Amino acid sequence: MTDLISTGADPLDAAPEGPTARRIGDGAQAIAVAESLAPAFAAGAGDRDAVRVHPHDEVAALSASGLLAITVPAEFGGADVEPAALARVVAVLAAADPSLAQIPQSHFTFLEALRRGGSDALAGAVYPRILDGARIANAQTERSGRTAADDGTTLRDTDDGLLLSGVKYYCTGALHADILAVRAVSGRGTGSAPHKVIAYVPADAPGITIADDWDGFGQRTTGSGTVSFDRVAVRPDHVVDFTALLADPGTYGARAQLIHAAIDTGIARGALAAAAIAATGARPWFEADVTEAVDDPYLIAQAGDLELAVRSAESLLLTAADAIQAADADPDGTGDRRRALVAEASLATAAAKVAAGRAARRAGAELFDFGGTRSASERANLSRFWRDARTHTLHDPERWKVHHLGRWALQGRYPPTHTAL
Amino acid sequence: MTDLISTGADPLDAAPEGPTARRIGDGAQAIAVAESLAPAFAAGAGDRDAVRVHPHDEVAALSASGLLAITVPAEFGGADVEPAALARVVAVLAAADPSLAQIPQSHFTFLEALRRGGSDALAGAVYPRILDGARIANAQTERSGRTAADDGTTLRDTDDGLLLSGVKYYCTGALHADILAVRAVSGRGTGSAPHKVIAYVPADAPGITIADDWDGFGQRTTGSGTVSFDRVAVRPDHVVDFTALLADPGTYGARAQLIHAAIDTGIARGALAAAAIAATGARPWFEADVTEAVDDPYLIAQAGDLELAVRSAESLLLTAADAIQAADADPDGTGDRRRALVAEASLATAAAKVAAGRAARRAGAELFDFGGTRSASERANLSRFWRDARTHTLHDPERWKVHHLGRWALQGRYPPTHTAL
Amino acid sequence: MTDLISTGADPLDAAPEGPTARRIGDGAQAIAVAESLAPAFAAGAGDRDAVRVHPHDEVAALSASGLLAITVPAEFGGADVEPAALARVVAVLAAADPSLAQIPQSHFTFLEALRRGGSDALAGAVYPRILDGARIANAQTERSGRTAADDGTTLRDTDDGLLLSGVKYYCTGALHADILAVRAVSGRGTGSAPHKVIAYVPADAPGITIADDWDGFGQRTTGSGTVSFDRVAVRPDHVVDFTALLADPGTYGARAQLIHAAIDTGIARGALAAAAIAATGARPWFEADVTEAVDDPYLIAQAGDLELAVRSAESLLLTAADAIQAADADPDGTGDRRRALVAEASLATAAAKVAAGRAARRAGAELFDFGGTRSASERANLSRFWRDARTHTLHDPERWKVHHLGRWALQGRYPPTHTAL
Amino acid sequence: MTDLISTGADPLDAAPEGPTARRIGDGAQAIAVAESLAPAFAAGAGDRDAVRVHPHDEVAALSASGLLAITVPAEFGGADVEPAALARVVAVLAAADPSLAQIPQSHFTFLEALRRGGSDALAGAVYPRILDGARIANAQTERSGRTAADDGTTLRDTDDGLLLSGVKYYCTGALHADILAVRAVSGRGTGSAPHKVIAYVPADAPGITIADDWDGFGQRTTGSGTVSFDRVAVRPDHVVDFTALLADPGTYGARAQLIHAAIDTGIARGALAAAAIAATGARPWFEADVTEAVDDPYLIAQAGDLELAVRSAESLLLTAADAIQAADADPDGTGDRRRALVAEASLATAAAKVAAGRAARRAGAELFDFGGTRSASERANLSRFWRDARTHTLHDPERWKVHHLGRWALQGRYPPTHTAL
Repeated sequence: MTDLISTGADPLDAAPEGPTARRIGDGAQAIAVAESLAPAFAAGAGDRDAVRVHPHDEVAALSASGLLAITVPAEFGGADVEPAALARVVAVLAAADPSLAQIPQSHFTFLEALRRGGSDALAGAVYPRILDGARIANAQTERSGRTAADDGTTLRDTDDGLLLSGVKYYCTGALHADILAVRAVSGRGTGSAPHKVIAYVPADAPGITIADDWDGFGQRTTGSGTVSFDRVAVRPDHVVDFTALLADPGTYGARAQLIHAAIDTGIARGALAAAAIAATGARPWFEADVTEAVDDPYLIAQAGDLELAVRSAESLLLTAADAIQAADADPDGTGDRRRALVAEASLATAAAKVAAGRAARRAGAELFDFGGTRSASERANLSRFWRDARTHTLHDPERWKVHHLGRWALQGRYPPTHTAL
Repeated sequence: MTDLISTGADPLDAAPEGPTARRIGDGAQAIAVAESLAPAFAAGAGDRDAVRVHPHDEVAALSASGLLAITVPAEFGGADVEPAALARVVAVLAAADPSLAQIPQSHFTFLEALRRGGSDALAGAVYPRILDGARIANAQTERSGRTAADDGTTLRDTDDGLLLSGVKYYCTGALHADILAVRAVSGRGTGSAPHKVIAYVPADAPGITIADDWDGFGQRTTGSGTVSFDRVAVRPDHVVDFTALLADPGTYGARAQLIHAAIDTGIARGALAAAAIAATGARPWFEADVTEAVDDPYLIAQAGDLELAVRSAESLLLTAADAIQAADADPDGTGDRRRALVAEASLATAAAKVAAGRAARRAGAELFDFGGTRSASERANLSRFWRDARTHTLHDPERWKVHHLGRWALQGRYPPTHTAL
Repeated sequence: MTDLISTGADPLDAAPEGPTARRIGDGAQAIAVAESLAPAFAAGAGDRDAVRVHPHDEVAALSASGLLAITVPAEFGGADVEPAALARVVAVLAAADPSLAQIPQSHFTFLEALRRGGSDALAGAVYPRILDGARIANAQTERSGRTAADDGTTLRDTDDGLLLSGVKYYCTGALHADILAVRAVSGRGTGSAPHKVIAYVPADAPGITIADDWDGFGQRTTGSGTVSFDRVAVRPDHVVDFTALLADPGTYGARAQLIHAAIDTGIARGALAAAAIAATGARPWFEADVTEAVDDPYLIAQAGDLELAVRSAESLLLTAADAIQAADADPDGTGDRRRALVAEASLATAAAKVAAGRAARRAGAELFDFGGTRSASERANLSRFWRDARTHTLHDPERWKVHHLGRWALQGRYPPTHTAL
Repeated sequence: MTDLISTGADPLDAAPEGPTARRIGDGAQAIAVAESLAPAFAAGAGDRDAVRVHPHDEVAALSASGLLAITVPAEFGGADVEPAALARVVAVLAAADPSLAQIPQSHFTFLEALRRGGSDALAGAVYPRILDGARIANAQTERSGRTAADDGTTLRDTDDGLLLSGVKYYCTGALHADILAVRAVSGRGTGSAPHKVIAYVPADAPGITIADDWDGFGQRTTGSGTVSFDRVAVRPDHVVDFTALLADPGTYGARAQLIHAAIDTGIARGALAAAAIAATGARPWFEADVTEAVDDPYLIAQAGDLELAVRSAESLLLTAADAIQAADADPDGTGDRRRALVAEASLATAAAKVAAGRAARRAGAELFDFGGTRSASERANLSRFWRDARTHTLHDPERWKVHHLGRWALQGRYPPTHTAL
């Protein structure tokens, strides 16, 4: 099938529509690029949220900036930045526009799946497109299962080749995707045991329908629609063995969670910044006996406590990123030491995720204490931080991450490494 | 001027449009009536909030139920219920529809102002109308002052009699009002010192314009519009001396705050009930290894902590109500003992207000932990509890109530008795 | 043995050593008496704690005051005060000396067991002594069981009559007891099923050894020693059927817990009062730019938050007491309504207990923020509030009370009524 | 005076009594050495605390280990480890024995003062002794001032040379010191303005009296005694200009605070480890229906929340250390960028300090929830973690660090750089 790739007949490596994306050299540059894009992203975030307008231009800008390619392996021409840089990039974007920042969460996660379990053919087909700005979105959650992707979507080996059928919900970023990474079950109905797989297919392949039907009260412009697959053709070498990937005690799950934690961390920082701005225009409470609300001692103390919460999240985020890097850098790939490092990466990421979610919801809620009654105006749309934080942190519950931290503390038990992605 | 009343020329005692309201006999009956009305109020609350439809029918039902007359003095034919009953009535209504429950907050507050400082003429004009279902709304907050009602609206003694001019904002309930209680300054520009007054005027008097322009993201259907007064005629005996009322170390402020605390307490209870319902339909988290989300031990613990917070608010609310009653029941009207009782009423009410606000915001935010991702659907509109709690608790900041409690605890100092109304 | 009673040979109704105790008429008087005793109790509490000196004089003063008889039924000449009054008496005592206040916890609890399940003979033997100032202590906790009193201590029917043997730990108040209420199992080894009983025996009966061996770091002077029973004679009509008592869905457990909650509530109030005193002598932090530490705005805010926590506990305590009273006042003794009232009493008491424990530990810990470094002096012994709160709240864990509140909130399930005593 | 040094007549460079200390090469080795010492330090910590026995052997072991010399500049033969390594060393020691870990806090702080403001003579006299294991203790706090070291102790220029007189309190480590670093005021009574200085004197110099009189209920074995100076001779080139040092917008204050934060972080980690051990031996609560207390879901959740708090403190500690390093590494020594970096170092350290203090007190208090009633035994002495945390965090109040964080968040204002040392 290699010829298909070279002839361009395989849609996964079809030429991107836009101009070739910028190449980013390293993590520091990636962060700088994110920071340069952030003000424009932030400027329109409130309005986009208010009327649920999709950030098409902003997503295109992300592609063009090269940020979506920063985890491509160096051997394929990418910057292959360290996890800390990726986390900071996502946090910077989330502080500007939380919905926009979530769109590439699965992009980076399924690039990681490819890196760990993809065939050469898949790598050869996908990486060049990513470097040119292409975007991957997930199609994993199903409605009937106890949790995501248990069952319904099936990859069958037929006379017409591999065919994918099923329906997926909450497919964040699907509206903007060039490639869909679809979790499915293969081998069903055959003699062998069913297998979890990820199939990479072009988003515009025949048989795929993407509905713009997400109606959450927060993260409103993530383009998390429903995607239907009706006998969609899949190349055998574009399938990643997900069961095998999850069986590895690795950092795949931690990396996915790290990006979620980075989103919440960014929301927290963005909300606190909005609080400071809101305070500037607020009427001081008469009992404070100050002329500016920002001099109210109790607002100062409240801001200080929030600053501490946000700093904790930021600090834990980078600590988690470093733990992931340390686990993956360890040469002893199969022994106890690796298991311990992977466990630590998972625990550190769990801690970051919980702290970030708490900080984001708190900052999003408390910012009104700084702005007072006039900040409650619908026009100001300052509720979006809390709405975004509240919605995003429903993805996978913090209480079970606390559970894993507690079992570690009390019993020394390692957490599951791939709990939620 | 009695003849004016008897001829019906004074709009304050104009006949109500609807049928005569029910008469409620005592506090227990009042609570029972509120509980009987609540289910219907709750049923439509989400939809009214979603599209900002004013609860005209519900307000009319409140009038007809007799609940708006339960604080009318017994000598005028009212039930004159104890503060605890009033607080419980408001909490029951707020658990059903927080916006609806806030509409009569100033109704009850300005009935109290009338009781404490109103002329016989005003009492004779207003009470019968209230018994028949009429509604009072406030017009007190101004935009220019350091806080509410400092300055701009003026009551002038002219050749055409007393004339009222100015603009008031956030006039909760104004859209539904028969009578407006307007805070203003009189005596300005004369030799004597300016005086704070409350002028009671018919809501449809010439010169009054009520704009439906409140656009808060919560408490959306409180009808809190802007009211303009352009040389509105005011009867001299329909003016209450507010400066004198505030100079009295009484429970006027505590009673006003008690209703706010009751609103927050009701929101908290309503949100927790909504959380339990949301949990019933939620997908259990797979790690909990339970078939029903309500059996997840960590959701149980979280619900228990919320239940404790709500119970604390409810308990403090009734304690505050009893303290207000004790202060007003004391026969020794001017001495140290009365000052101590009034201070205790104020502190108890401050405690109730802070606890209720915290509980309401927490319950409104955490309910999504019980419902999971699907509870984030805009259609379900479960965010309204948090939005209502967040918006309503901006009215006057809890941090300065904590300050008063702290000065009492540390220094034994009495709080100001009329901080915010 | 009946003749022994008529001859006065039974120690349970032996004449008390001291003068006849005062008779208290009602709850208000009881609270006033407690308040009058409190300053003297408080004055020596620190010193007694520091060197673990038992409060013999103070316990004697309690007996003489009549406070230990306030729950004796009216038909036996007691004041039979309402639960709220008892709770307030205990809280007042605990604010003065937490150890002293815990000593009568089981006194009141086992008086309640007697009232609910005691024979006329037991009532006739015990109540007169209580009115004269006698004290009951518990002997219930065993070391081997999963929790208190599961197994080891046995009441056997022998040729020598009923004989009690076993060892009990943490027998609070045992050092001061005239009567011991001993939880045991009867019927063991016979054909019939074992039964839980409470045997009332004179504390100085032959075969009883009381060791002064409690060495907790808090509640140091509760006299909670180990009590051994070696074939101690028990009169058959001095045995209460505990299994039957627990089978009743009543308020026995809630009443026992209410006293524990009152102890914690009192500790919280006492610690906050100590904080205010410590602040008076503290050096103000230079950045506060105030001349008195009590004017530091952040200390004021902290004190306000503590005051709120203590008021919450106090409010919930009285709410719980009233719920207990309501449950017991209900005439419909066996139906659904009684079960609902009993459940509410239990939930309200659980809420009070959790809030009180949290407030007590917080106040005991935070008081040093008010006193600064010099308050850390061992001589000042200000750590006793935290040590007492921390130790006492280990009695039965708050987390499982939160669990019961949560199941109620989420599932509407009633709590067990007699969880921990 | 140089000859005095070369002849050894100056006590500061007198030969140490013991054997030459080990030389540590870098930060990693320092941490490893600390970890190797920790178990022995931990083993006796409880007993030393219980009877206030000074850790003479342990302090000697610290000296011999080379850990006390790790911040000596490389040019003088030290390892000059990065701040993160120092922080981790202190945290490791504090987890083992909080009192012992605090003893070198001022040792490292006054080594830093020497590095920043000491003469060559002082460096030449002190560093070699430090490399050989000598210990510096502070003498700074006075009782009369609004805060530490305002006034009373004076350095006078007399006919007999510089003479130091005054009394200092809470001189942590003084009992173990070879050298005292004494904060004093010079120039008093002369025409010129008084100046703050630090005088380095041998601890056994004539005129110095060290009293073992610290009686705090925590950090009991820090040897924080009262030190009196009666006309103690001081060499002019052994005086550091403290006013000049504080005027520099540098990281001197942040470094001092970092060590305090490290102590609290270590206490937190030590207490959590003790909680896990206590849980192992605890009786499971019967309602949990588990055979081991460590499987109680609510204990797991509580441990998880504590683990998160401790990880937050640990993460913020290293982030702060890195910020200090970044500020000091910046070549642009006087400009806006340096001020920004120094401010960030100060803010990051403030955040670490607050988080560490809270975590330490929480872990120290909550550990009893894991151990249950039997953990309250005085013999187990598990209260020492809370007592140590509570006492140590009185040193300088967290509330004003929160204030600095809040002013930064709200107003963008830089904190004072040397608030408390």
